[in-house]
Amino acid sequence: MIIVTAYSWVPPIVRGLVRDLRVRWALEEAGLPYRVELIDLRNKPADYQAWQPWSQVPAYEEDGLRLFESGAIVLHIAEQSVALAPKDPQAKARVTAWLFGALNSVEPPLQELALLDFQHADKDWAKVRRPMVVEFVQRRLKGVADALADRDFLEGDFTAADLLMATVLRMARNTDLVQEAGLGDYLDRCEARPAFGRALAAHMADFKDAA
Amino acid sequence: MIIVTAYSWVPPIVRGLVRDLRVRWALEEAGLPYRVELIDLRNKPADYQAWQPWSQVPAYEEDGLRLFESGAIVLHIAEQSVALAPKDPQAKARVTAWLFGALNSVEPPLQELALLDFQHADKDWAKVRRPMVVEFVQRRLKGVADALADRDFLEGDFTAADLLMATVLRMARNTDLVQEAGLGDYLDRCEARPAFGRALAAHMADFKDAA
Repeated sequence: MIIVTAYSWVPPIVRGLVRDLRVRWALEEAGLPYRVELIDLRNKPADYQAWQPWSQVPAYEEDGLRLFESGAIVLHIAEQSVALAPKDPQAKARVTAWLFGALNSVEPPLQELALLDFQHADKDWAKVRRPMVVEFVQRRLKGVADALADRDFLEGDFTAADLLMATVLRMARNTDLVQEAGLGDYLDRCEARPAFGRALAAHMADFKDAA
Repeated sequence: MIIVTAYSWVPPIVRGLVRDLRVRWALEEAGLPYRVELIDLRNKPADYQAWQPWSQVPAYEEDGLRLFESGAIVLHIAEQSVALAPKDPQAKARVTAWLFGALNSVEPPLQELALLDFQHADKDWAKVRRPMVVEFVQRRLKGVADALADRDFLEGDFTAADLLMATVLRMARNTDLVQEAGLGDYLDRCEARPAFGRALAAHMADFKDAA
């Protein structure tokens, strides 16, 4: 049985954004059942760092294989399911390029923007820094929009690259940046997938005060 | 013939840090010859964005396959060479976890620190922000050091994970953070590899005013 770690509680403002959602979504697309192991954000198990070097979620276990990093876990699942990546090595390499693009080129500026808006919105330094981050985010989103052009997904059918890109774009949900970049329909298209709906519902339901 | 793009000029402070170095190093470890296509940072070809969505380096071409993102390119090369990743799928998945760890969890705070130190060192907002970034970098480097413990490399022998982690740690070369985290010997061990020496020399020699 596959095990995925998730937090038992996070502040409401980041619910729907925590990275276990990516792994749940990938498992739903691949049709693989899993069990969740809840981690208390404010009282993490002493041995958890041996599984996840930054003591964050998600961590993953499958037949004795322990993994960390949402990107690596999603890529591992994608290697087992054509629902997430084509078998052809060249096509799969293209998907992998976009998967890194989402996590290494688009996520960092969106993560910084989320940090400014969620944790430091009232600070003078953050008010000076924010326009620079917004401009950087806009450039990266334009790169995605230009590459997508009039296609539905980044590389042919829906793949793990779209899954990760959508979870990254969701980080800007407190702004209009995704819509302004012309990526609103693309994000809607990804979020309309039944597997996303199931993953999001399970992600939200696991927060202990979720009622 | 494999083609890798690199810049013909960058400011001296970032030479040795530009991401084409990662791909050159991986190709040197794998023993694969390549040709460099130089890009003028201040006058990029109009059609370059179709190859690299953010118009950055490196981009990669091999037998008609065009890739971008240093992580995806290094992983693609690693899939062709046991010098960079084991063949066993479980062992390879562990290497991939660390590869994402380097690029998605360690690089972003080091990139932010480099941005503050190289571009905004004299700004008031950057002086307020910097201690927070340093503390975040220190936590991430402790995660790497704890995982490494007394081993030479992250997963058994030297792999693509160490290659990427080393290029990420190099971003803090203007500070003592890597040494203070107990990762100085690890970085030295990676940089002592002959393939790194050849890659760095070629990277530096390609800058047009490199005399």
